[in-house]
Amino acid sequence: MNCILLPAENFSTDKAKIDAMAQVNHVNKVLGAKVGDTLKIGQLGGHLGTATIENMAPDRIQLCNVQLDVIPPAKPDVTVVLALPRPKVLRRLIIDMTALGVRNIVLINSYRTQKSYWQSPMLERLDEFVLEGLQQGVDTIAPRITLQKRFKPFVEDTLPRLMTNQAIVAHPYGEQSFSEWLQSNSSLGLPSLVCIGAEGGWIDYEIALLAAQGCMPVHIGPRILRTEAAVNAILGQWLL
Amino acid sequence: MNCILLPAENFSTDKAKIDAMAQVNHVNKVLGAKVGDTLKIGQLGGHLGTATIENMAPDRIQLCNVQLDVIPPAKPDVTVVLALPRPKVLRRLIIDMTALGVRNIVLINSYRTQKSYWQSPMLERLDEFVLEGLQQGVDTIAPRITLQKRFKPFVEDTLPRLMTNQAIVAHPYGEQSFSEWLQSNSSLGLPSLVCIGAEGGWIDYEIALLAAQGCMPVHIGPRILRTEAAVNAILGQWLL
Repeated sequence: MNCILLPAENFSTDKAKIDAMAQVNHVNKVLGAKVGDTLKIGQLGGHLGTATIENMAPDRIQLCNVQLDVIPPAKPDVTVVLALPRPKVLRRLIIDMTALGVRNIVLINSYRTQKSYWQSPMLERLDEFVLEGLQQGVDTIAPRITLQKRFKPFVEDTLPRLMTNQAIVAHPYGEQSFSEWLQSNSSLGLPSLVCIGAEGGWIDYEIALLAAQGCMPVHIGPRILRTEAAVNAILGQWLL
Repeated sequence: MNCILLPAENFSTDKAKIDAMAQVNHVNKVLGAKVGDTLKIGQLGGHLGTATIENMAPDRIQLCNVQLDVIPPAKPDVTVVLALPRPKVLRRLIIDMTALGVRNIVLINSYRTQKSYWQSPMLERLDEFVLEGLQQGVDTIAPRITLQKRFKPFVEDTLPRLMTNQAIVAHPYGEQSFSEWLQSNSSLGLPSLVCIGAEGGWIDYEIALLAAQGCMPVHIGPRILRTEAAVNAILGQWLL
């Protein structure tokens, strides 16, 4: 938690309150902060800034001198279409993609996504993971997350509208590597949409459907990475 | 587990045996393989290839038609000097760095590394995490891992010998970004050594010591990533 994000209703003039227990505990136990200390805070959907601790109770912290004058960092222009991963991995992936500043996240079904993943209670907790990601990455603007349980209708009807620029699909059997593709498309810059498979990747039928809509299959070398590692390794291009 | 790596002693002429329970269970439960099926295998420190399942018992699998004729993928020329992270994160970081093909990994102490991390039983299990990483990344050559509990002597005496080319240290307050640095050093290519801090990063004293040895502090933008995400985002440059 590199900043503490509060909803708009927790602010009034130059005061604010922290009343979510995860945040109260973080201030107490991780930061070890006390009355008079300055905290890095932000307003969800608004600006970043600082505040002073005025008062501490076991279940809430009162802040004064609230100053919200820092615009959150610009988001890279990228949409990630991700085959719904294992629930255990989902939390970290949402945190990481949010911290990296991904604008749109589409969780889709794929042949290698187990049906049970769509019943996971983790899917009810996406807002919580987004908040964790924003507080990690020091941003206030949540990504838009949509769930698409039907692969083919999504790819054929919705995907084309999300493709504002070039698009790629990570695929170990792509003919080109991502870097070769970037070099041959250097005038267009980074793609605006990236499709990343679940463990085991995409099947040929899925690659064919994505390619038919203009997503270029590219590989990232012979090494196979965990989904989380692959997402960060690929999206690192937008940071660096 | 994208391949099953066996030690040299498990091979004899064109036969081999799988007797580690994690691997036996993977073949049975994840792959659902049966007698006559072909598996992707490799010899630790040797070549990659395939074998056929000849015989299956609850605690061992006998392989025949062993063919080891694929050279493992080249490793990028990169050493990672990493402040020892939380034990929970250590496993995934070793798996990811191994899968990415990092040649040398140095785990060092830093001001923000908690002393207790050096007592973690996870440090006894590095070989196991390396095996997981090799089987994930489809490689057979383990990285060299060294532990350095004393920051200053390591940086002053050992680090210079590890720097075969340019070196960087990831630091949010670096004056240059990694990409600016890469552009200004484009004739030299990627650095051969990367220092990455623990949660909370490096303190000024540590940055000064590293910089005095020629490690250039570079940032990766205003967003703060989890250590795992940062390692993958940075090392993705060597893959792509």
